[in-house]
Amino acid sequence: MRILILGGDGFMGWPLSLYLSARGHEVAILDNLSRRRIDEELGCMSLTPIASTTERLATWEAVSGRAIGFHPIDLAREYDALEILLATWRPQAIVHCAEQRAAPYSMKTPRHKRYTVDNNVSGTHNLLCAMVEAAPKAHLVHIGTMGVYGYDNPGVEIPEGYLGVQVEGPNGTRVDWEILYPADPGSIYHLTKCQDQLLFQYYAKNDGLRITDLHQGIVWGTLTDETRQDGRLINRFDYDGDYGTVLNRFLMQAAIGYPLTVHGTGGQTRAFIHIKDSMRCIELTLQAPPQAGERVKVFNQMTECHRVRELAHLISKLTGAEIAFLSNPRKEAAETSMHVRNCKLRALGLKSTLLNDALLSEVVEVARRYPARAERSRIPCTSVWTREQQRAFGEPAQAKRAEA
Amino acid sequence: MRILILGGDGFMGWPLSLYLSARGHEVAILDNLSRRRIDEELGCMSLTPIASTTERLATWEAVSGRAIGFHPIDLAREYDALEILLATWRPQAIVHCAEQRAAPYSMKTPRHKRYTVDNNVSGTHNLLCAMVEAAPKAHLVHIGTMGVYGYDNPGVEIPEGYLGVQVEGPNGTRVDWEILYPADPGSIYHLTKCQDQLLFQYYAKNDGLRITDLHQGIVWGTLTDETRQDGRLINRFDYDGDYGTVLNRFLMQAAIGYPLTVHGTGGQTRAFIHIKDSMRCIELTLQAPPQAGERVKVFNQMTECHRVRELAHLISKLTGAEIAFLSNPRKEAAETSMHVRNCKLRALGLKSTLLNDALLSEVVEVARRYPARAERSRIPCTSVWTREQQRAFGEPAQAKRAEA
Repeated sequence: MRILILGGDGFMGWPLSLYLSARGHEVAILDNLSRRRIDEELGCMSLTPIASTTERLATWEAVSGRAIGFHPIDLAREYDALEILLATWRPQAIVHCAEQRAAPYSMKTPRHKRYTVDNNVSGTHNLLCAMVEAAPKAHLVHIGTMGVYGYDNPGVEIPEGYLGVQVEGPNGTRVDWEILYPADPGSIYHLTKCQDQLLFQYYAKNDGLRITDLHQGIVWGTLTDETRQDGRLINRFDYDGDYGTVLNRFLMQAAIGYPLTVHGTGGQTRAFIHIKDSMRCIELTLQAPPQAGERVKVFNQMTECHRVRELAHLISKLTGAEIAFLSNPRKEAAETSMHVRNCKLRALGLKSTLLNDALLSEVVEVARRYPARAERSRIPCTSVWTREQQRAFGEPAQAKRAEA
Repeated sequence: MRILILGGDGFMGWPLSLYLSARGHEVAILDNLSRRRIDEELGCMSLTPIASTTERLATWEAVSGRAIGFHPIDLAREYDALEILLATWRPQAIVHCAEQRAAPYSMKTPRHKRYTVDNNVSGTHNLLCAMVEAAPKAHLVHIGTMGVYGYDNPGVEIPEGYLGVQVEGPNGTRVDWEILYPADPGSIYHLTKCQDQLLFQYYAKNDGLRITDLHQGIVWGTLTDETRQDGRLINRFDYDGDYGTVLNRFLMQAAIGYPLTVHGTGGQTRAFIHIKDSMRCIELTLQAPPQAGERVKVFNQMTECHRVRELAHLISKLTGAEIAFLSNPRKEAAETSMHVRNCKLRALGLKSTLLNDALLSEVVEVARRYPARAERSRIPCTSVWTREQQRAFGEPAQAKRAEA
């Protein structure tokens, strides 16, 4: 299959490009390298030393004998280049991992909020618009987030995208209706993914585009069979307060003897998936595209739910690390629970990598390997969700608390 | 009250600015004058000859003795200027009519689709972002559209924003839940208003912004008590295939002896409101702001529902005009019905101007007054919704059919 990976230089896109290339697909990457510029902005590099895009691609060709194309195009700003690429390269599938994906980063300042909305919404819309013109039959696979569901539903199991409801019809009758699950985003980043859902719904209905939206849990792990093959193929590993997702941050903290930073009571329940399972899910999704005219397919791409506190205890037990409870920069309930349906990808053949099986290899092979690259000052989360929180505990206060 | 009108030079914003100024409010306009540039792009001016913004404002000051400020700022592109304006002028209320508002225009080409999304979503988000920084207590009133509800609900009465549903809870229980009505936009323009809803929901919840979203029907009529006071105060009147809304288009067609152009069977039901009632609704809304922390207030701002075909017959009877049935450029069901709840604004004091009362004065005072300014070639709608329609009846074919 000819597959274009948008954001193919990033945390999801890079291992995915290798995974699909290794399985014989013709792969090309579109990326504006914005994530590398954000590293510079935040003054915090990936814990793993990542090679330049050119070096990565040359290494992969040397190691595998397979070439991956690279198109340095800005999805949100270079529409014409995008449309020409679709028209000339004619991808059969497009995987969209080209969005700003960190909730804390999206909350930092008005500039970061605006960048996240403008980049994510315009980028996704440009893509849909260009597909109508130049690739109307390609299958679009979007990396969404479990966060579109939000955390305060009235106790119902979270379905895969669509919720069956009953509403009052004429003359007191009850009418069944299946609707897109009501969105309840918890950050500007999550908000953009909810706005994306409306874009997908519209373009599937009006233009018959074939779209699958993968509502992904928090990805953990770094290594895949492909990225292990050469040091220059290694994937990025984020541990900072903005981009480091909770489990990877804990692993790295444990490895360098820094207390595991739990926000609030750690009672928030989150959904997780290992990066290797995530690759497999996308492969399965590519094999089962919707028909033209079919509504957007939605899969919940996650394998386990855990409270953040439980994870900290688990890693503490494995490694002996201490746990530090900090104030929560997010505006959310202290204790949340979550029941998620995830039958569809299992039905397609997904087998899970469980936490207990792969945690330790990540600690040893990744987190403990580059201690000198760890910037301790970048570990605390300095973004806050509201102006009240900003006044209550600004950057320096929070940073100090974490170091204490 | 100090009230900032975004898009205050446009069809809604101009009469609203005068209306509120006449009632003693301190009014300022923010506008990038994009609508005047679109007139030039489409080669079709307002049927009524509208004065320049400067002349309009000077005339109003001469006539009423009241000054209205003018800030030529692009909401979607000049964030810093916006934030400074909010911080220094400190509006107590902001009315947002600064979006690209024509469904056919939003469907013309990829450029028009992208302009509509980028302009409307970024503009609304910039506003919310700047309000958090510089005007967190102001009341935002947004001009939304009945179109967010879509046309294929399963027979339920359309509520004012929020829908009560029952969902399956734990152990076979049924749980009541009140949700934002599921969005079903029928064009890119309507899609952006649905995306706006998510922005409002988020900023009301996370930042405590006070927001009212007015889901407005199709506005008809042009004249208000203020705009009648001097020829240079006249409001714009659009009759072209892109910006001319159905009732105003019929009035003008009747006035110049052009057949009333009905798309499809004319069986589509739409909601309507007279422009004077629209002004009054916004005034009532400004007097009843939500509390900080309250969810977004949603009012349905419409007074009557009609099938397009019925309106054509009504105007034909009044004026003797013929009716021409054309193919429908929109992707929608041929015959739709609609039951809309609109109690909230009535409860606040709205009395309706009914079609039968005001139709003829519009024909005589506006549509028949400027026959020489009517460009007959601009009357047909040349935008289509899908590539199939484009192939089936491209621009020239449709234009010819209408002239036939």
